[in-house]
Amino acid sequence: MSGNTFGTIFRITTWGESHGPAVGVVVDGCPAGLALAAEDIQKDLDRRRPGQSRASTARQEADRVEILSGIFEGRTTGTPISLLVWNKDADSSAYDLLRDKPRPGHADYAYQMKYGLRDHRGGGRASARETVGRVAAGAVAKKLLAEEGIDVVAYVTELGGIAAEIASTDLMELRALAESNAVRCPDPVAAQRMLERLDAVRAEGDSLGGVVVIIAEGVPAGLGEPVFDKLDADLAKALMSIGAVKAVEIGAGRECARLQGSEMNDPMVLRDGRVDFESNHAGGILGGISTGGPIVCTISVKPTPSIAQKQRTVDLARGEAAEIEIKGRHDPAIPPRIVPVAEAMVALVLADHLIRQRAASV
Amino acid sequence: MSGNTFGTIFRITTWGESHGPAVGVVVDGCPAGLALAAEDIQKDLDRRRPGQSRASTARQEADRVEILSGIFEGRTTGTPISLLVWNKDADSSAYDLLRDKPRPGHADYAYQMKYGLRDHRGGGRASARETVGRVAAGAVAKKLLAEEGIDVVAYVTELGGIAAEIASTDLMELRALAESNAVRCPDPVAAQRMLERLDAVRAEGDSLGGVVVIIAEGVPAGLGEPVFDKLDADLAKALMSIGAVKAVEIGAGRECARLQGSEMNDPMVLRDGRVDFESNHAGGILGGISTGGPIVCTISVKPTPSIAQKQRTVDLARGEAAEIEIKGRHDPAIPPRIVPVAEAMVALVLADHLIRQRAASV
Amino acid sequence: MSGNTFGTIFRITTWGESHGPAVGVVVDGCPAGLALAAEDIQKDLDRRRPGQSRASTARQEADRVEILSGIFEGRTTGTPISLLVWNKDADSSAYDLLRDKPRPGHADYAYQMKYGLRDHRGGGRASARETVGRVAAGAVAKKLLAEEGIDVVAYVTELGGIAAEIASTDLMELRALAESNAVRCPDPVAAQRMLERLDAVRAEGDSLGGVVVIIAEGVPAGLGEPVFDKLDADLAKALMSIGAVKAVEIGAGRECARLQGSEMNDPMVLRDGRVDFESNHAGGILGGISTGGPIVCTISVKPTPSIAQKQRTVDLARGEAAEIEIKGRHDPAIPPRIVPVAEAMVALVLADHLIRQRAASV
Amino acid sequence: MSGNTFGTIFRITTWGESHGPAVGVVVDGCPAGLALAAEDIQKDLDRRRPGQSRASTARQEADRVEILSGIFEGRTTGTPISLLVWNKDADSSAYDLLRDKPRPGHADYAYQMKYGLRDHRGGGRASARETVGRVAAGAVAKKLLAEEGIDVVAYVTELGGIAAEIASTDLMELRALAESNAVRCPDPVAAQRMLERLDAVRAEGDSLGGVVVIIAEGVPAGLGEPVFDKLDADLAKALMSIGAVKAVEIGAGRECARLQGSEMNDPMVLRDGRVDFESNHAGGILGGISTGGPIVCTISVKPTPSIAQKQRTVDLARGEAAEIEIKGRHDPAIPPRIVPVAEAMVALVLADHLIRQRAASV
Repeated sequence: MSGNTFGTIFRITTWGESHGPAVGVVVDGCPAGLALAAEDIQKDLDRRRPGQSRASTARQEADRVEILSGIFEGRTTGTPISLLVWNKDADSSAYDLLRDKPRPGHADYAYQMKYGLRDHRGGGRASARETVGRVAAGAVAKKLLAEEGIDVVAYVTELGGIAAEIASTDLMELRALAESNAVRCPDPVAAQRMLERLDAVRAEGDSLGGVVVIIAEGVPAGLGEPVFDKLDADLAKALMSIGAVKAVEIGAGRECARLQGSEMNDPMVLRDGRVDFESNHAGGILGGISTGGPIVCTISVKPTPSIAQKQRTVDLARGEAAEIEIKGRHDPAIPPRIVPVAEAMVALVLADHLIRQRAASV
Repeated sequence: MSGNTFGTIFRITTWGESHGPAVGVVVDGCPAGLALAAEDIQKDLDRRRPGQSRASTARQEADRVEILSGIFEGRTTGTPISLLVWNKDADSSAYDLLRDKPRPGHADYAYQMKYGLRDHRGGGRASARETVGRVAAGAVAKKLLAEEGIDVVAYVTELGGIAAEIASTDLMELRALAESNAVRCPDPVAAQRMLERLDAVRAEGDSLGGVVVIIAEGVPAGLGEPVFDKLDADLAKALMSIGAVKAVEIGAGRECARLQGSEMNDPMVLRDGRVDFESNHAGGILGGISTGGPIVCTISVKPTPSIAQKQRTVDLARGEAAEIEIKGRHDPAIPPRIVPVAEAMVALVLADHLIRQRAASV
Repeated sequence: MSGNTFGTIFRITTWGESHGPAVGVVVDGCPAGLALAAEDIQKDLDRRRPGQSRASTARQEADRVEILSGIFEGRTTGTPISLLVWNKDADSSAYDLLRDKPRPGHADYAYQMKYGLRDHRGGGRASARETVGRVAAGAVAKKLLAEEGIDVVAYVTELGGIAAEIASTDLMELRALAESNAVRCPDPVAAQRMLERLDAVRAEGDSLGGVVVIIAEGVPAGLGEPVFDKLDADLAKALMSIGAVKAVEIGAGRECARLQGSEMNDPMVLRDGRVDFESNHAGGILGGISTGGPIVCTISVKPTPSIAQKQRTVDLARGEAAEIEIKGRHDPAIPPRIVPVAEAMVALVLADHLIRQRAASV
Repeated sequence: MSGNTFGTIFRITTWGESHGPAVGVVVDGCPAGLALAAEDIQKDLDRRRPGQSRASTARQEADRVEILSGIFEGRTTGTPISLLVWNKDADSSAYDLLRDKPRPGHADYAYQMKYGLRDHRGGGRASARETVGRVAAGAVAKKLLAEEGIDVVAYVTELGGIAAEIASTDLMELRALAESNAVRCPDPVAAQRMLERLDAVRAEGDSLGGVVVIIAEGVPAGLGEPVFDKLDADLAKALMSIGAVKAVEIGAGRECARLQGSEMNDPMVLRDGRVDFESNHAGGILGGISTGGPIVCTISVKPTPSIAQKQRTVDLARGEAAEIEIKGRHDPAIPPRIVPVAEAMVALVLADHLIRQRAASV
């Protein structure tokens, strides 16, 4: 109800602020008997961690996950899996000036209006650090999905207006290409231009937005519920709930508005005795239910709101206009770091619906 | 859990198929004491009803709402409000050919895979008729929102690639303009071109997609929950759950990917002693919580999948390739009819979060 | 959230007041493919209906159920099953005196304090008529349980201090005996005495309380969730949610307080190669999870609060002491009529946990 | 869904096994602005901790709570409050014999049947250690209730058949009396006899059951939802979800079955211009909604199932009859230690409904 829980049967509850002692997540409803080790989770946390590349902030975080419950002799027991990552001691003094001056493009003002008070240090609960819990839980979901042959991959297709050309349709290859550069773009030429563009805006004290695509393959037909909990509706919520995401598209997405029915409809054919689709404008979902084809989601990510340039704001304590210059090192672009978070959210939705589908028929 | 319920405190459950006896909705969690009459609901149902215009199908439905519970002496009692609309006797024989041949772009195949059986007549639960419950419940939500000075308006901004120019920012005026033509576009010149385009594609047995904008004004700052139940995340789910919607954008939406932080961030200013924003790229939501500014959502709607042209499908009973020509009169474009449905979904999300916000502080 | 929905996956939402046009229930999450006809539901509604016997009120209600959705060609489709029963036109004038004078032992005062207004006619939502929805939905649950070989039977074991002697342990026999008399007590001798006692208190304008036992057999081991959603916890909520129930016991119940561990623990043995229990103090549930043995619940039901005797109350409009004499024919004892309601609630809990259990392991 | 979450708005999720690294709870939905310190929580954890008295086990646990999130400058922020208590290193070898031999009266067999595997050490998730999370979360709820003038007190009224005589009706005094002896019984004479009885059964390797009463005062009229989420229904679930509880009674409880309506109904009177009740057979709840009077719940607690005597069980690995003697020091009676747990569960229900009630009227 207070929005820190996600999912219905496979359900996670995240907690923790950027400047508190720790962040974590409780994963409930994971079936018993799944092989699960800390390393399964750590590898995605490592992908999420801000690195030393030009695309992400220089802040170092070790982010070692601790499994506190729910595993016995290497397997899940069906009871809650509690995952915790300690925060590094952080100097909060840099945030003192934010106490009364909300940052434009940030949640500061909205939190203040909602609660009447807020932990202003590092954005508190609205910090990107909140995604540690999502990624850790998503890794558990991915493990469950892998048992069913489902794979989820995300990558950057556009950054600062530079669009990638995606040649491959092979998920393994796309993942390898994307993970080989700091912007997580599977087009090496575009990736190089994106990195140069990032250097330029960083020098200006500015930031860039971009686009990320998430693809899930191996999803069986039949996942999703007909009316409100459509698979695409739940994916839209999952992805829009990631900070900085301002648009979610499924399949042809925004382009569908300019297609005619005869173009949009994916013809159905038989291949090797099984139903297949000649195109995938639907993005693998019809009527909110998976069709067996690849599920394709696209998200648009706004430029990092924390920029070094002087910005106009309001001093809430004094009730007067004010200016703010945000110190510290911030990612000049969010899309590369959002990649593992977006994968996690899609994996969480699929894991939940995979289990929900078990209730569909007698 | 089976996806026919939406909302947390202000919560609706819809039921009914297009060729069953009736469709309806139970609205639970509406506060006691709200003045509510059948006419409040009927006027939106009338807007939803397929009319005689060129933009919509010729099928006639009376769609009189019956209030079966929850109202006493003209006011809500706090108990469930049960709303019912009888279906007209419909000839189902036209759908006989669909029993084994799923329609491309429709939910037929996905349902069959999910449940192992389905009511194939008129799409069953996946019919557009399902939106009767959404619109009826949305009208109750709108009544509640109106008490708080919140207004929700939607209109068509693009159809078949023809984009409207929206001159006004006044919601009342936009509504009046939109409701004055059959495509619900507040730009009369574009509306005329859209109608001509519709005539052309109908003659070809084809259909058009389009874009709808939904704006909510008067929403107080502080609505929405920080992490997963962000206001924009819940709006994304609500809108993506409407059949035919393939993209949801908030504020600048997809465009944010090409803006720099210095452009995207909405500067904060004081106006008459209150915090205001110089621009609205955020669409009235920061960190998932409303800021007090107008909430702006954009949805992209695919072209009607039911087209008269011959399409390739599969005969599931015979396990062989097949062709299908869909008979009957179908809207050649969904956006005009989706307008009241989209308003309803936004109203439902806002009503729920309005009540949820009462729990935020001691 | 507003408490009119029960269950998680197999989930029902009831609506309707005693003096509104109708009462009903939406059953969501029933798996597809279950054979279901109106008659399956009607037979339990007929058992619930007030009859002409001495144990129940003389008010006649036809209570024909209408299935409005969710069934196609005699089978459930997996979509919501909407069930409706019209109310008879009722004369509400008898309730005029209740508008300002809450009845002792009734919900009148509490509703008024909760909502600030209420439908005072016939108790509104707090009327026993609300159980129509429970019983109708419970009949669907029973049908699902029957597919798995699970049977649920309830009967009266005590009324007005007269205790039955229950000789049989055969559910079919117990049901036949209980349904053969107006107090639904499987001990014919006690039943006769109970009926005489009822005649006596009715003559005094008074009423009697009693005890009902509910037994479920064929429940597989493994139903229930470990911590909060224990099977016995959900049964306790389900049964305590029935108006007039003031105590819920599982297995040995209240008696366990006076047993020693060596007496209470049910020894485990092997019978025909399967684990069995030598006694059933646990009532078929350990650690909140079913063990495979019979599930045994006992509820204590208060005497009907609507009595003909003069009672002291308060006139809320005048703010002064008042007296009230409740007119009309009321059941002098609730237990016989609560039997099908209690069965329904137990069936609903079991159906839900039966489906939930499908998510327990990979 | 997997039953580790309790509550709707004020909602807790517990995690942890007795022999894992830690146990904990995430409290979500606590309003912002509540003053809260570790000490507020620690004092109830200290009451829960097994002590050195004759009534409880000798195992020593420090149980220091750590607050990991949700508090800023001494006040709740409205975000999740994560509470953690580390487990002491425990020797699990004593439990090796339980791997294949389920203990009579324990959850062992049921877990094995549910999940196909289990953490057999110390009962895993079914251990009494699971109540750490309940008590910690309950302490937060109590702090919130105290702001509204609501107090919750529990005590033992019967142990091993020895019934206390409760002279006082003053909660403060009852609490002081109960906390002054090891059996938490406010009747010092009965307490002494209970302790002697405990010594006797311990010597026999046996255990005792008992009865606990929980009273909440200061609860405003209007809490609870009419149909399924009745206040008494939610209390019944909350209390029955505590391991070892086999019966829950509200107000007159089981006794109501033997009262007549004229005795059971609590006459309403005016006292100092306010509505009051001359008796409290209803236990402060009518129609599932609080009336403003004291809320009174009674629970019956079974004798500790872990007894030193030889018991019959089954060796699941070998598929043959077996015997078991449970080693280690176990409480010979649970009621004294259940007192803070029962208070916590009642406080959690009241806190949730207190917040839910804010949604009742416009």
